Amino acid sequence: MFASGVDHERLTSQLRFILETDKLKRILRRNMLVDGSRRENDAEHSWHLALTARVFAEYAPEGTDIDRVVEMLVLHDIVEIDAGDTFVYDAQDSVSQPERERSAADRIYSLLPEDQAAHARALWDEFEERTTPEARFAKAIDRLAPMLANWHTEGGTWVRYGITAAQVREKVKTIAEGSEALGAYALALTEDAARRGYLR
Amino acid sequence: MFASGVDHERLTSQLRFILETDKLKRILRRNMLVDGSRRENDAEHSWHLALTARVFAEYAPEGTDIDRVVEMLVLHDIVEIDAGDTFVYDAQDSVSQPERERSAADRIYSLLPEDQAAHARALWDEFEERTTPEARFAKAIDRLAPMLANWHTEGGTWVRYGITAAQVREKVKTIAEGSEALGAYALALTEDAARRGYLR
Repeated sequence: MFASGVDHERLTSQLRFILETDKLKRILRRNMLVDGSRRENDAEHSWHLALTARVFAEYAPEGTDIDRVVEMLVLHDIVEIDAGDTFVYDAQDSVSQPERERSAADRIYSLLPEDQAAHARALWDEFEERTTPEARFAKAIDRLAPMLANWHTEGGTWVRYGITAAQVREKVKTIAEGSEALGAYALALTEDAARRGYLR
Repeated sequence: MFASGVDHERLTSQLRFILETDKLKRILRRNMLVDGSRRENDAEHSWHLALTARVFAEYAPEGTDIDRVVEMLVLHDIVEIDAGDTFVYDAQDSVSQPERERSAADRIYSLLPEDQAAHARALWDEFEERTTPEARFAKAIDRLAPMLANWHTEGGTWVRYGITAAQVREKVKTIAEGSEALGAYALALTEDAARRGYLR
């Protein structure tokens, strides 16, 4: 059932990966949509990050390759198909997170043809290790997005889980590492949220 | 509540756009997730297309800029926040679609700062007009994705809406315009679906 001139085995691997990653649409995050109607899933979250990274590109350090940032963001949550979403303020769950996510990366990226699997895995490792401006900016966008949603839903998960301003300020540091401007904005948002009583 | 050294008005416009586009997560398409559990929304669909375009990059004509394809795919459905999803086989709805989507593009992209609004609008126009290899490949990916979902859910929307093989073959032409290999694969998939009784 394949086109002529195409490597069937290769195309089959690619299709298997594409179908498998459909499952990301069923992985729910803690935070809600901005209208508060329901929890956000990882796939739509990843789309919104890709869009946000592009819109905020000017706040990345000079020379940051935004196309690579977007590629990273499109890939970065796929491991959660197996590992599940880890709430950023869940200290206990966060301990086992790296191992769970590495196993997931081993399985899921390996569905791709070898060259593509290696490329995706390297990008995901880079994102996790934050060793490049692209990875740090991608992580900053990933951290900023739920803050925006929380602020616009009168505290959202901050209120629901009794998160403190000190805890959020800690996360803001990661944003500042990726983007000075977005770090400063996130800090101002945090202080404002504290004043409004959205944070303990 | 803004960072120093940042143009407040500009950042406010960008934030407004980012928050507005959260609504794409609530626009439902006709097709289901691959596991058949629920209808797909536009935001998660856009994510999956961005991923698929990257995985299938090698099937684009030589010289196609996949980063631009991905940028287009991330943006292309935002107009549906106002215009709603138009079922590709709904002939009546398709008549009013261009006008509805143009009005939506006028409103939503204009939330961005002027330079970014012009860039996003030009990309969307290019996608709609299919005047470049990037636009044609993006459209091919957009057309191929629901076919994969339908084939893997025993016919999905094809069965539900009584779609014929001739109707699908017509859509396959658009895929072939963007990618010879994916067009050939889509045609083979269509003939197989017809044999299996997924198509009238």
